[in-house]
Amino acid sequence: MRLSTRNQLTGTVVEVTLGSVMATVKVRLDGGEQVVTASITKEAVAELGLAEGTPATVLVKSTEVMLGVE
Amino acid sequence: MRLSTRNQLTGTVVEVTLGSVMATVKVRLDGGEQVVTASITKEAVAELGLAEGTPATVLVKSTEVMLGVE
Amino acid sequence: MRLSTRNQLTGTVVEVTLGSVMATVKVRLDGGEQVVTASITKEAVAELGLAEGTPATVLVKSTEVMLGVE
Amino acid sequence: MRLSTRNQLTGTVVEVTLGSVMATVKVRLDGGEQVVTASITKEAVAELGLAEGTPATVLVKSTEVMLGVE
Amino acid sequence: MRLSTRNQLTGTVVEVTLGSVMATVKVRLDGGEQVVTASITKEAVAELGLAEGTPATVLVKSTEVMLGVE
Amino acid sequence: MRLSTRNQLTGTVVEVTLGSVMATVKVRLDGGEQVVTASITKEAVAELGLAEGTPATVLVKSTEVMLGVE
Repeated sequence: MRLSTRNQLTGTVVEVTLGSVMATVKVRLDGGEQVVTASITKEAVAELGLAEGTPATVLVKSTEVMLGVE
Repeated sequence: MRLSTRNQLTGTVVEVTLGSVMATVKVRLDGGEQVVTASITKEAVAELGLAEGTPATVLVKSTEVMLGVE
Repeated sequence: MRLSTRNQLTGTVVEVTLGSVMATVKVRLDGGEQVVTASITKEAVAELGLAEGTPATVLVKSTEVMLGVE
Repeated sequence: MRLSTRNQLTGTVVEVTLGSVMATVKVRLDGGEQVVTASITKEAVAELGLAEGTPATVLVKSTEVMLGVE
Repeated sequence: MRLSTRNQLTGTVVEVTLGSVMATVKVRLDGGEQVVTASITKEAVAELGLAEGTPATVLVKSTEVMLGVE
Repeated sequence: MRLSTRNQLTGTVVEVTLGSVMATVKVRLDGGEQVVTASITKEAVAELGLAEGTPATVLVKSTEVMLGVE
C-alpha cells in the first residue's frame, strides 16, 4: 500500500518499553545518530513483533511536524 | 525552554512552499539523506523566517509517530 | 509494509478538493453510508493519483480518535 | 455543541481495556463490520461511562486522517 | 454529546482567515488575554458560521498537548 | 529556540498522575480558571521535573485544535 504520509524514515528499533495498554519504542534512524520515540499501543508492538534490532520505518503525517529555529 | 516533545531532530530547510494559509517546509536531517516534510501555517513560516538553507529543528510528539515493518 | 496504525478502514474516494498546498479528500467507507474527510497535502493527492472512484484505505492512529456519548 | 470536527461516525463500544492512565476502546461502526480503536485517558472512559454495548460516536479531525492506495 | 476530549476551553473568535481549503481561526480564551489559533477546514468555518465575535469552545485531545519548562 | 507552534499558553502544574509509560499532567492557565490536561510520556515528566506548582507552558500545534459552537 502506498501512503499519503509524507514522512517515512528508515531505521532500527533500539528499545521497547511496554506499559499496561501503551508502549514506547525507540528507533535509531539510518545514516545518523538521531533517535525517534514512538508512543503506540502495546497491541501494535505485539502484532508487528517489534524488538531490539527490528528494522522499522518511522511514519509521521506532515501536519504533525513542528519546526524550531535558534 | 525545555520541551516534553521526545523527538527533536536537527537539519536544514531545503524547500518552502507557501499556500494561502498553510505552507509545506521540507527539512533534510543531519547525518543522512532523509527529508522530513512539515505542514505548518504560513504565519509561522514568516515569523521564523524559514527559507532554503535555514538550520531548523524538526519536532514531533511521540504520540504522533507510527511504525511500519516489512 | 505492516503498520502500527490501528485504524485502517476501506472505502472509495467520492470527492477531491485541491487547495494551494493542502487538499481535502472524502472517502465513503465500505458497508455503510459513512463518509470520512482527510486533509492531506496536495502533493500526496498527486502522488497517489487520488480521484473520484479510487478505492482507498483510511488510516488513523488510535491516539487521534475521540469518543462521544449522548 | 456543533463541532468543526469533520469525522463523526456512529457505532457501538465492543471492548474497553483499562491501563494505568490510558485506555483503549474499540467501537464497531454502524452499517458495517469495521472497528475503530481509540486510545483515550482512563479518566475519560470513567466520565463517559463507556462499556461494552454503549452507543458511541467516533470523532477524528480531518488533519489526522491519512490515505493509502494499493 | 459528551466528549472524551479532556480540553474544552471557552472563548470568543477574534479573527478568521480563509485559505483555499483550510482556514485559521483565532480565539481569545475567557478570563485572560491568551489567544489560541486553530487550523481547520474552510468547510467547517462555513458550517459553524464562525466570525469575529462568535462565542466558541476550543477543543484539544490531551495526547496533542506538549509541555515546556524554563 | 523559537517554535512554529502557534499555541503557547502559560500556566502552573496542578496535578501529575504517573502511569506505566504514559502520564497525565494538569496545568491551570494563567489569568483564568481553565485547566488543560496533557498526556505525555512518563520519561518527559521525569526529564522536565514536573510536579505540582511547576510553572509550565502548554504547547499545541494549530492543526490539533478543534472548535465548537452552541
